[in-house]
Amino acid sequence: MMITGKMLIGQSAVRGDKGLLSAINPATHETLGPDFGVGGIADIEQACTLAQQACDRYRATTAEQRAQFLEAIATGILALGVTLIGRASLETGLPAARLIIERGRTVSQLRLFAQVVRDGHYLGATLDSALPTRLPARPDLRLHKIALGPVAVFGASNFPLAFSVAGGDSAAALAAGCPIVVKAHEAHLGTSELVGQVIQQAAAAHNLPEGVFSLLIGDSHPFGQSLVSHPAIKAVAFTGSRQGGLALMRTAAQRSEPIPVYAEMSCINPVFLLPHALSMRASEIGRGFVEALTMSAGQLCTNPGLVIALEGQPLTQFCSTALDALHKKAAATMLTPGIHHAYLAGIEETGNISGITTLGQGCPAEKPSAAQATVFVTDAATFLTTGRLGDETFGPSSLIVACKNADEMLAVAEHLSGQLTATMQLDDADHSLARKLLPILERKAGRILVNGYPNNVEVSHAMVHGGPFPASSDSRSSAVGASAIDRFLRPVCYQDLPAALMPEALQEGNPLELWRMVNGQCVLA
Amino acid sequence: MMITGKMLIGQSAVRGDKGLLSAINPATHETLGPDFGVGGIADIEQACTLAQQACDRYRATTAEQRAQFLEAIATGILALGVTLIGRASLETGLPAARLIIERGRTVSQLRLFAQVVRDGHYLGATLDSALPTRLPARPDLRLHKIALGPVAVFGASNFPLAFSVAGGDSAAALAAGCPIVVKAHEAHLGTSELVGQVIQQAAAAHNLPEGVFSLLIGDSHPFGQSLVSHPAIKAVAFTGSRQGGLALMRTAAQRSEPIPVYAEMSCINPVFLLPHALSMRASEIGRGFVEALTMSAGQLCTNPGLVIALEGQPLTQFCSTALDALHKKAAATMLTPGIHHAYLAGIEETGNISGITTLGQGCPAEKPSAAQATVFVTDAATFLTTGRLGDETFGPSSLIVACKNADEMLAVAEHLSGQLTATMQLDDADHSLARKLLPILERKAGRILVNGYPNNVEVSHAMVHGGPFPASSDSRSSAVGASAIDRFLRPVCYQDLPAALMPEALQEGNPLELWRMVNGQCVLA
Repeated sequence: MMITGKMLIGQSAVRGDKGLLSAINPATHETLGPDFGVGGIADIEQACTLAQQACDRYRATTAEQRAQFLEAIATGILALGVTLIGRASLETGLPAARLIIERGRTVSQLRLFAQVVRDGHYLGATLDSALPTRLPARPDLRLHKIALGPVAVFGASNFPLAFSVAGGDSAAALAAGCPIVVKAHEAHLGTSELVGQVIQQAAAAHNLPEGVFSLLIGDSHPFGQSLVSHPAIKAVAFTGSRQGGLALMRTAAQRSEPIPVYAEMSCINPVFLLPHALSMRASEIGRGFVEALTMSAGQLCTNPGLVIALEGQPLTQFCSTALDALHKKAAATMLTPGIHHAYLAGIEETGNISGITTLGQGCPAEKPSAAQATVFVTDAATFLTTGRLGDETFGPSSLIVACKNADEMLAVAEHLSGQLTATMQLDDADHSLARKLLPILERKAGRILVNGYPNNVEVSHAMVHGGPFPASSDSRSSAVGASAIDRFLRPVCYQDLPAALMPEALQEGNPLELWRMVNGQCVLA
Repeated sequence: MMITGKMLIGQSAVRGDKGLLSAINPATHETLGPDFGVGGIADIEQACTLAQQACDRYRATTAEQRAQFLEAIATGILALGVTLIGRASLETGLPAARLIIERGRTVSQLRLFAQVVRDGHYLGATLDSALPTRLPARPDLRLHKIALGPVAVFGASNFPLAFSVAGGDSAAALAAGCPIVVKAHEAHLGTSELVGQVIQQAAAAHNLPEGVFSLLIGDSHPFGQSLVSHPAIKAVAFTGSRQGGLALMRTAAQRSEPIPVYAEMSCINPVFLLPHALSMRASEIGRGFVEALTMSAGQLCTNPGLVIALEGQPLTQFCSTALDALHKKAAATMLTPGIHHAYLAGIEETGNISGITTLGQGCPAEKPSAAQATVFVTDAATFLTTGRLGDETFGPSSLIVACKNADEMLAVAEHLSGQLTATMQLDDADHSLARKLLPILERKAGRILVNGYPNNVEVSHAMVHGGPFPASSDSRSSAVGASAIDRFLRPVCYQDLPAALMPEALQEGNPLELWRMVNGQCVLA
């Protein structure tokens, strides 16, 4: 496969004629060839019309057909080998080793959803038997979930594979039976095209309707707004900035038919250091914190951007160890010059706030777009009265909040806006305080973790990667893990439908061998 | 209990001082005493603050505590006896017999949700075991669902019991562990206060935090908007007009923290008469249609407002039988003078549309606010090119669309906007056409029913009372049945949480005896 600079619309490769975009190597600021043609409204129209036409036929495919499609995409991505990893590394500044891990995650997500589709649990099959002798008679009622319809997917800058063209959102939507129209992220256009070609070929090889997948290139916010406004689109998945997510939410809400938006936006992932744990393990926790802070140059939505602890000697020890570790951390290339610029502006703004001091920074940057990790310190009173401090600075920046007592820690927790994660470092002797903190954190975060760091997001059944606004636009959903498929489904109930017309998941004899809810009981029958 | 004209804010009864409202007997246009004091912003603030304060304590109650609370409300409603039925009948014009059935539904909804809470299936308990030897190690991950937070409930005009103060939305939210702030519907203020007193007393008797329930009286749209805008409110449930629902959706989307709105709005519940069934049972179907059309004076969100059939002798026979039945139908009192007025305006507007003829009407009205059922006829070409015809006229009005062929029937189906229900009258010989219609109807409706009429909405596990916009604001949810509780929940994942802090639903040994998803398998362990 080769990068051509074209969009992929159904089974066609289409050169956009509304301008040119180029990929840039953030480590050198050099332009990477070839250039990419920018699409326009007609391309959106074409992709969305194909998606709409594909809709009924694609959602009528069997579980096995969709599972094999997802697995073929996974295989195709692996087969791209160094071509993909090399290009992604050039476009994002992320090291090859990190991208290989991310590719593994991407592939395992696709395979997990293949398994989810085969299992069929996501269908939510529910049957209530007819009660003909009851007064009034109860009809036969059977429910399963069906695909919402075509989904617009906006990839993330920071995961060029795992949250991009064939990333978690795409895999979940395709698994659900929804065609997807993906807008390529400008920061990794070549990577996007390579992966897009894999999906396009897999769709053809599996004889799927061509509209099941399109990949568009657009260079402006209005392009994305037009995609979200298209009547064929029935849901939106987005990972990115709060500003970008809010704009798509507004557009979706203003449609004549409003549609759900799943936007994973920004948060600061607070880490609470409970007193006993801190007194026993200040240095260990401090080192772990700096490791977590600087992972992927801090460009993770689960980056620990806030640390809350009681003032005193253990916190001094934590800060001292963290500072030592920080001083040894090399500056790392950020994803784009724009992201690097925003990071510099963010830490400058934070550093200028009255009541904030800079604990320290990592090694100075020696290359373009490389970021020095930065840790700030403040007290709870300043945090509670300064609005800006709850906002994310995307990159390796964090703020330590020193509290006078446990009540101030609880007040800081209560003051937080919605988060993807909240972490407690705690020992058995901290349980009493943890019990007070836990109900607050439950209201604030989608995932609560103990004695770890939030960076890694396991792809499994019990994962929640979502949380109250503004961490995500819809706290009822998860962007990672098996339940991510639920975002693209809606229930349909069939009342007294003849057996000959009944969807397979709901037929007598349970031919798909699903766990089903039958008259309120969970049974394999 | 007696009607005092006061609001119920927590455990207090508060006389609103922002004006006066009175209940009106729609059958006589007489005012019913006493008058009601209208609340203002300070009352909203008080109710929402109490709800927020109650939030953590209420959601920490055991399943058994919440189940008993719901059952006590059911018992209390029954104990109101003729006081409640009599007042509700005076306020709404609905016959006592219908209200007794509705009371039964209300009580059974409360009891169903008590059972749902005891079952615990709604918690979605999901466990993924730690894999400490995997590289990288997998942490222990456990997910359950928790209450979203305080819910604003707006009752419906047409179900003064089943979709009002202690109706389906309230029962589902209270079951989920959410405090509720209910805005009483102006059309049945006395009924609302009586039921509100039952909930208030049940909350006290069960030692629940007082903010778990408040009942407010407001006389303007801005009052509702202010309630939805309050930062303590985390979700909205509404049943009513499209205009009202859209206004609340806009308000919720514009909050600094947007929140979900579950608005059940308007639709026309198409009924497709497939050719063979119509040729065999035209008269029977025609009689059934008029029964369905005139039930509760047509004031049901599942009223059959559209009939689609092939032109020809069987349709002529259907129309003739329907007309005979219609002529025998007495005019029935509508819920309010305003609703009656809107009905008259709606049928006048429809009748004036070019290409529409009036098939016939029911008996003339002899009392104030009584509605004559009205059936119109048109052809598919007119329907497909006249926008207004897809909109609901609330009341006993329906439109028959004569199609030249099956393709026109399919085109009419494709032309429809979102619906709560879609019905097919069909015989075995109609299966071929039904197979073409079914995928379209799946995209258009939340419930698809065969050889019945959509009016009755069973309260069970497999029911879906919802559908694509504008039938409801959120097609992923149901307002009726066990799954209605899902609207008020969000998932939280715990990573490596110590056993001593683990929520009961997720503990080792499964003390709540739940069906849980463990490592991807559904098990009772």
